[in-house]
Amino acid sequence: MKLLEDRILKDGIIKEGGIVKVDSFLNHQMDIGLIGELGREFHRLFGDEGVTKILTVEASGIGIACIAAQYFGVPVVFAKKSESKNLDGGVYTAPVTSYTKGKEYIIRVSDKFIGADDRVLIIDDFLAKGKAVLGLKSIVEQAGATLVGAGICIEKGFQEGGRLLREVGIRVESLAIVELDENGGIKFRE
Amino acid sequence: MKLLEDRILKDGIIKEGGIVKVDSFLNHQMDIGLIGELGREFHRLFGDEGVTKILTVEASGIGIACIAAQYFGVPVVFAKKSESKNLDGGVYTAPVTSYTKGKEYIIRVSDKFIGADDRVLIIDDFLAKGKAVLGLKSIVEQAGATLVGAGICIEKGFQEGGRLLREVGIRVESLAIVELDENGGIKFRE
Repeated sequence: MKLLEDRILKDGIIKEGGIVKVDSFLNHQMDIGLIGELGREFHRLFGDEGVTKILTVEASGIGIACIAAQYFGVPVVFAKKSESKNLDGGVYTAPVTSYTKGKEYIIRVSDKFIGADDRVLIIDDFLAKGKAVLGLKSIVEQAGATLVGAGICIEKGFQEGGRLLREVGIRVESLAIVELDENGGIKFRE
Repeated sequence: MKLLEDRILKDGIIKEGGIVKVDSFLNHQMDIGLIGELGREFHRLFGDEGVTKILTVEASGIGIACIAAQYFGVPVVFAKKSESKNLDGGVYTAPVTSYTKGKEYIIRVSDKFIGADDRVLIIDDFLAKGKAVLGLKSIVEQAGATLVGAGICIEKGFQEGGRLLREVGIRVESLAIVELDENGGIKFRE
């Protein structure tokens, strides 16, 4: 998606270790107009799939999922990362390793909010090693629901997540796939 | 706001210790249509204040802030709760105690995203003891920015946060103020 690619080139910063820093418009400060366009694009890609729920994981996926959900007219469910007094009853859980934060945690979704009739679209800001999406996929499967696909804003093409997810049959639609070029800069996969 | 009050009565659950559980529509599963109406109401209340940034804290405030920001046409900045490789450079920090999670953490905002010219509106899902808003207020002050007020979805009127924030001069607009009645049920402050 050219709009997003242009914005990454203009305002993104590539740091050592393959960290793509887009905190000025996507995951710390959020440009709501841009994210509206990303939401519209996710709907163009998945709008005919009969999506009934959008699923994401806290924290930075939530805003993007909520904006996108307006186009689909469906609720958002976000997986929680930590034990909380507010989450009890039956829960689906899955372990996830965060590449950025360098630690493992458990994601949880109440079993009240995804059921066998649901057609679930996963939305997230980044795809690197694919662990978050695999965790969410496990939760969709535990619920007996159908996973429609994963809508990702920025895929790190130089990490294995995208390949891994596509190999297990997930329809992954990334709005920008970043590759590293020879000089430590970035380019986009066609 | 009657729409929100009716929804709390219909789908909210009051648990021991004053925990108001609204996870079926506000902070785990999110009813995007309802949240759109809450965003519209925040804009009705604060729309003439020249707001330039909406500030919230991860995680459950983010979606509400993003939807509300569409009405204001301004970016969202969300404070992060944990150390991350992606957050460096100058940061504003403040300690916050979470009532629900029973622990203290540090919230952080990059100094690139709030400046002296900003007029900041804080948005959050809940107001209980007021610690999150006070932490965000400290960050606004560190930036030399102007705090326009705090837009809260649900205030727990039986806890001290609302009184505390109003006493220090913050304009707090809560869309529903929940009080406990004599039978352990709830009612709303007029």
